[in-house]
Amino acid sequence: MPELRQDPISERWVVIATERGKRPSDFGGGAATKLITEEHVDTCPFCEGNESKTPHELFVVRKPKSKPDGPGWEVRVIQNKFPALTSQGDIKRSGSGLFDLVSGIGAHEVIIETPKHNLIIADMPPEHIDKILLAYKERIIELEKDARFRYVLVFKNYGVAAGTSLDHPHSQLIATPITPRYVKLELSNAKEYYRHKERCIFCDLIRQELDIGYRLVYENEFFIVFCPFASRFPFELWILPRRHQSAFQEIPDDQRMQLAVCLKEVLSRLKVVLNDPPFNYVLHTSPNPIPRPGKPNHWGTIRFDFHWHIEIIPRLTKMAGFEWGSGLYINPTPPEEAAKYLRNAKI
Amino acid sequence: MPELRQDPISERWVVIATERGKRPSDFGGGAATKLITEEHVDTCPFCEGNESKTPHELFVVRKPKSKPDGPGWEVRVIQNKFPALTSQGDIKRSGSGLFDLVSGIGAHEVIIETPKHNLIIADMPPEHIDKILLAYKERIIELEKDARFRYVLVFKNYGVAAGTSLDHPHSQLIATPITPRYVKLELSNAKEYYRHKERCIFCDLIRQELDIGYRLVYENEFFIVFCPFASRFPFELWILPRRHQSAFQEIPDDQRMQLAVCLKEVLSRLKVVLNDPPFNYVLHTSPNPIPRPGKPNHWGTIRFDFHWHIEIIPRLTKMAGFEWGSGLYINPTPPEEAAKYLRNAKI
Repeated sequence: MPELRQDPISERWVVIATERGKRPSDFGGGAATKLITEEHVDTCPFCEGNESKTPHELFVVRKPKSKPDGPGWEVRVIQNKFPALTSQGDIKRSGSGLFDLVSGIGAHEVIIETPKHNLIIADMPPEHIDKILLAYKERIIELEKDARFRYVLVFKNYGVAAGTSLDHPHSQLIATPITPRYVKLELSNAKEYYRHKERCIFCDLIRQELDIGYRLVYENEFFIVFCPFASRFPFELWILPRRHQSAFQEIPDDQRMQLAVCLKEVLSRLKVVLNDPPFNYVLHTSPNPIPRPGKPNHWGTIRFDFHWHIEIIPRLTKMAGFEWGSGLYINPTPPEEAAKYLRNAKI
Repeated sequence: MPELRQDPISERWVVIATERGKRPSDFGGGAATKLITEEHVDTCPFCEGNESKTPHELFVVRKPKSKPDGPGWEVRVIQNKFPALTSQGDIKRSGSGLFDLVSGIGAHEVIIETPKHNLIIADMPPEHIDKILLAYKERIIELEKDARFRYVLVFKNYGVAAGTSLDHPHSQLIATPITPRYVKLELSNAKEYYRHKERCIFCDLIRQELDIGYRLVYENEFFIVFCPFASRFPFELWILPRRHQSAFQEIPDDQRMQLAVCLKEVLSRLKVVLNDPPFNYVLHTSPNPIPRPGKPNHWGTIRFDFHWHIEIIPRLTKMAGFEWGSGLYINPTPPEEAAKYLRNAKI
């Protein structure tokens, strides 16, 4: 019989449609992303040597003696050429009749993950992935100093079905003057839970998943990966730090390397089990502290009630009207089965 | 400059990315749905004469003297052959550690809109559309009598990109033992508004849209259609009854015909302006009354704080990781411009 499951953190309900029970091979089989073989493409603005086609670099990991905005980099962050939000100007919050309005000030940046056109995270050495994570960290730290912004959202679209328009491996971030709705819902539910129990709901969740074990996909000393109980999508995955940490920026350097290993591990498993599927991942970190006079903005408040995490969403099914209109998802693959496939994957 | 807009009913934030300003012709142009020319397809289970390929009819509008589950029908409702939820069994609500679980009991039905394989709503006479709406109404009334269900969601997926798997014109409904999250959010915000002001937030919204006028697309005596202020998607449309009505089932018969005219009108405009785009629509009606001893379940409570409506979502853009992970939408077409195109469409 199918089950309706509720995620305690987001309040989302999901139909786990066991009857439809889809296995990895039911999702098309062929790679949803086109195979990219060239290591260098002359017309690609993100390839090494084409730096003049992009805005100036905002953060970079470079080889010694190489020049800014020139070749010799390993990871490079630039402004998005077609930003959804404008970086110049003051925030104006206004009302118009029933409506609330905020000027569209924000940052929209691209993290170019590698100079190589065809090198995806699953195939990179962990030492290189660590540099991408460092770029995420440094940009979040930089942008949360800007008192106009309330949130920095790091995300990645992989494959056309996941919304990417450029093949060259990259992630993005958007800094916004409001906290996005899903993060806000997580925050308020986690806060409520903490108020009642004086425990972090995510820490409780981790303990429970470790106890029962059958939704686990991977773990190392500092990180755990599982298919969440109320997975919205087949093969959805969450990565969390095992010990309480409210913001991604708080990860010590040695732990970050373990996150790099973890990310490589799970993206490789997805690649093998689902034949290189399109996917999105999104980093949910703590919102930026609201600036107070005389206090440094950076890591202003370490929260006991929120726990950063990465949500990975393979894009195997199409969203239909039912999901859009209701916020109720239908997932044809029970997370327990998805976890088994991913756990047993030979990579 | 782009704007961040908040919808007061759902609390959703939307980036209206004016800089990207997309016009109808920017969305691909060619029909996103394949042109269907055959009026009858032998292998289609929804075509007239093929009734034996489907489950028994649950509701039907038939020509006099035609036989149940045979030809001669105009609109026909059947159980979905691959239902997401099971109709047999009792609702069990249970907990497991941190999690809430409800047995997957529900109804999943298909409303076959016409015996003709190629006749879409935009091309139907309003008298026929009225019969589809009657089917929606009768099925909602029937299903809300079932004390196991808390909500009946009627929706339509048109075109492959909108999630449909069968070409023959049809809508669907799902009855669930929980109220879906988006509807619940609307309900709680509308209730809060009513508590403060003793006015329906939707009624206030209608007054405001009629006053300013530039987001209006169509109106008749009983219905109004506009592009909402915080449209998530380009050319998103909402249809509402002008006078307060909490549940779709409350529409008097003569008003329902005007809704049929209205639906034909706006779907025709979408078809002309966006070249037959894929779309979803979803009916947000009041939740089923919770059964009380000695009270009839049907239309049990007429609410002053909720106002039924239909949300139409053309599927022109791909959802990327940013939207998934944040609940913050980026819409490249300001609703004011979308409304102008749709208002001025020659149909």
